[in-house]
Amino acid sequence: MLILVANLGSTSFKYKLYDLVPGDHETVLAEGAADRLGLGQSNWSIKTDNASNKGVVDLADHAVAIDFHFKELINLGVIDSIDAVDAIGFKAVHGGPISGAVKVDQNVIDTMQDFADVAPAHNPPYIAAMKAFAKQLPSIPQVAAFETAFHQSIPMSRQVYGIPYEWTEKLGIRRYGFHGASHRFIATRMPEIDSNISKVINCHLGGSCSICAIQDGKSMANSFGMTAQSGTFHASRVGDFDAFALLKLLTPESGLDLQTIWNKLGKESGLLGISGVSSDMREVEEAAKAGNAKAKLAVDAFVESCRHYVGSYLAVLNGADALVFTGGIGQNGKAIRKAICANLDFAGIKLDDAKNESANGNCETAIHAADSTTQIWVVPTNEELIVARQTFDVLNEA
Amino acid sequence: MLILVANLGSTSFKYKLYDLVPGDHETVLAEGAADRLGLGQSNWSIKTDNASNKGVVDLADHAVAIDFHFKELINLGVIDSIDAVDAIGFKAVHGGPISGAVKVDQNVIDTMQDFADVAPAHNPPYIAAMKAFAKQLPSIPQVAAFETAFHQSIPMSRQVYGIPYEWTEKLGIRRYGFHGASHRFIATRMPEIDSNISKVINCHLGGSCSICAIQDGKSMANSFGMTAQSGTFHASRVGDFDAFALLKLLTPESGLDLQTIWNKLGKESGLLGISGVSSDMREVEEAAKAGNAKAKLAVDAFVESCRHYVGSYLAVLNGADALVFTGGIGQNGKAIRKAICANLDFAGIKLDDAKNESANGNCETAIHAADSTTQIWVVPTNEELIVARQTFDVLNEA
Repeated sequence: MLILVANLGSTSFKYKLYDLVPGDHETVLAEGAADRLGLGQSNWSIKTDNASNKGVVDLADHAVAIDFHFKELINLGVIDSIDAVDAIGFKAVHGGPISGAVKVDQNVIDTMQDFADVAPAHNPPYIAAMKAFAKQLPSIPQVAAFETAFHQSIPMSRQVYGIPYEWTEKLGIRRYGFHGASHRFIATRMPEIDSNISKVINCHLGGSCSICAIQDGKSMANSFGMTAQSGTFHASRVGDFDAFALLKLLTPESGLDLQTIWNKLGKESGLLGISGVSSDMREVEEAAKAGNAKAKLAVDAFVESCRHYVGSYLAVLNGADALVFTGGIGQNGKAIRKAICANLDFAGIKLDDAKNESANGNCETAIHAADSTTQIWVVPTNEELIVARQTFDVLNEA
Repeated sequence: MLILVANLGSTSFKYKLYDLVPGDHETVLAEGAADRLGLGQSNWSIKTDNASNKGVVDLADHAVAIDFHFKELINLGVIDSIDAVDAIGFKAVHGGPISGAVKVDQNVIDTMQDFADVAPAHNPPYIAAMKAFAKQLPSIPQVAAFETAFHQSIPMSRQVYGIPYEWTEKLGIRRYGFHGASHRFIATRMPEIDSNISKVINCHLGGSCSICAIQDGKSMANSFGMTAQSGTFHASRVGDFDAFALLKLLTPESGLDLQTIWNKLGKESGLLGISGVSSDMREVEEAAKAGNAKAKLAVDAFVESCRHYVGSYLAVLNGADALVFTGGIGQNGKAIRKAICANLDFAGIKLDDAKNESANGNCETAIHAADSTTQIWVVPTNEELIVARQTFDVLNEA
C-alpha cells in the first residue's frame, strides 16, 4: 500500500512516501520537501534510494506543491500515476475530542477549526492543506493521525486541571499531550531493543519539546497540557507559565495587550525569549560558551524544565527501565543529555560520559554506565512511520 | 521582647503574642482571634496558659480589632500596657522584589500594592491592616516577613519562565515561591530531629498547598510560581494551569469575560472546582467515599498534583533524606499521605501503614517503614514562630 505522510508548516511541505504493509514491509520509496509556499522561489527536493532531484520554482500553496511533487515522482519512476497513491496521512495536532487516527471529513476539519485557537501554529496549515489536497486529489483518501491519540491512556486524575469541572466537560479544557507519533514510536521500539524494558521516560527534545512517561507501551503522562505551548521550554514557545502572571502583563506598566502577549509567548519565548540570541539550541549553546550570561541561563533553565518532568515521571512510573533521548536536541545535544542525567543516581540513572560523547545521533546507542540500573538511550524517532502505520490501519478497518 | 505575630484575612484577624529571645526563650503568652470584621457580631477569643475569654462584639476593622484585643490582654494581665509590645510581625505574602523580612514603611506598602494584582486574596488585607495599625498604634514598629524570602536561594535556572527576559527583569515575572515561614520552620526543625537529615521534601498541604525542596536548610525549589494561585491544587485556587487554555475560555462559546475567569480560577477551582462539593478536603473525601465520582476525581487529582512535585524534587535533590507532611491536610490527611507515598520505593520511600494511621497530627511522628531509606514524618508547622524570630532579628539589626 502506498501512503504519503505529509508534514506541514504554514509555508512548508515535507513528506515521505511509504510502500507499507505492517509486519511485512515498511519501505520509504521517496522523501521530498518544498519551502516558501506562496512566497515565490520555493526550494524543492526529492530523494529516493538511487536518485535525487531538486530545484527552485514558484509554488503557490500546498495543493500546487503536492501536485508538483507527484509529477516529479512520476518522472523519477517512483509511481506510475497519482492514483497509485492509496492515501495521504497527516500527523495532525489538536482535534480536541476526536480520538485516534480517523479519515478526514468535514466533521474532522470543523473540529480542528474549533481548536485552532489553542493550536494557532499547527491547526490552520493542516486545515488549509487538507482542503486543498481534497480539491486537487479528490480520489485519494486522507487520514488524520492526531498527536493527542497516544495519550488517551493517561489516567483522568493526571488529565484534569483544578478548574470548574464544567469547563473540562463542556469546553474540553484538560491536559491532552502531544508528540504522540514520536512517543508511540519509542514506546514500540524500546521493548524491541530489550524485552525487559517496559517503563520508559522518553524525552523528545527538538524545536518543540515534550517528555512522556510510558508503561507497557502506553502513555501514562505527558508534559504538554491543553496546548502545545505548555510543558518544558520550547525553541520559541513559553512552556509552563503561571496563568495569573498575565495579570501583571496586562497592567498599564507593561504596555501590552492580550494579543501581543499571546504572540510573544508563542513565538518569542522559550530558548529565544530568555537568551535573546536564537531559538536554535546549538546557537544558544555557542553563545553561552562565549560568555553570554542570558544564553547560559536559557540553557540551564531548559535543562531544569526537562529534569522537572523526568523527576515527576520517575514518580509516575516508580522508577524507569529506560530513559530515552530523541528529536534534534535529544539525538545530538550531548551537553544537554549530560546535564539532564546529572545527579540522578538516587534513581539508578548513571550516564557513561564517553558513550554519551561518542554517540551518533542517527543511530540507536546505549549511553548508560555499566552500573546504571536504568538504561539510557539515544534513539532516532520516526514519526512518519507511525503515521503511515496508523493510516494503513484506518484504511483497512474501513 | 514581646512580639505580636498577626495573621490576617480580609475580614479576620488571628495572632500569637510571643515573649521571645531566640536561643533563650520562645514563649507564647497568648493567642487570639476575631472574625466578621466590618460585618457586625464578630466572634472574638483570647487564650493564655491559664485563662481564656471570648465573646461577640461589633469590630469595624483590623485597627478596632487589635485595639480591642490589646485592651483584653491588659485586662487579663498578659501585658501592662500597649507600649509593652515591642513589635508587630506580619507573615506578608507578595513583596515582589523586596527580599526577606523588613520594617514596614511607605515603600514596602507601595511595593505590596504594586503586586496586589497578582496576590488579590493576600496583599490587600495586609496593606489595609498595616496602615490601620500604624494609625492606631504609631509607637509600635511593624515588620513584614515576606513568604517569598525563604525561596531566594532557589537557583535562577529554576526561577525563570521561558518568557522574553525583559519581562523577568522589568516586570518581576518569575517563580517566587510562597509558604516561606512554614518551609523555613521545617527546614530548621528536621535537622534538630535527626542531624543526618539535610535533604528534605516538605509538603505543606492545607487550604493553600505547596511543596518545597530543601537542602542544607535552604530552599532549592517551590511548587508555587509567580503567584500563590499556581503549583499543586489548592482548596479553591486552580494550581498549575495552561495559560493558553485562556484562549479557549475567552471564546464566545464559553460566555466568560477575563474578570470572571480570574475569579473562578482563584475562588471556585481546585478541590472545590472539580468536586463541586466543597473546598474542605475532609468533606470531599467523605463525598468520594459515598460514591461521588467527581469528588473521587478531585481527591485523586490532588494527590497526583502533589506526587508531580515530590517526584520533581527528588530529581532536584538527587533523592531525599526526609519527606515531611505539615499543614491541616498534611498533618491529618492519612489517606492523602498514603496515596502520595504509594509506589515510590524506587526512591527508598516506604510508608508504615500502621504508623501513618495512628499518627496524631499535632505531634511530630515518624511514619516510615523500617526499611525506608527516606524518613517520612508528620511535623506540625509553626509559621508564627518563624515570623516572630524574623521580627526579632529585624529589630535587633536596626
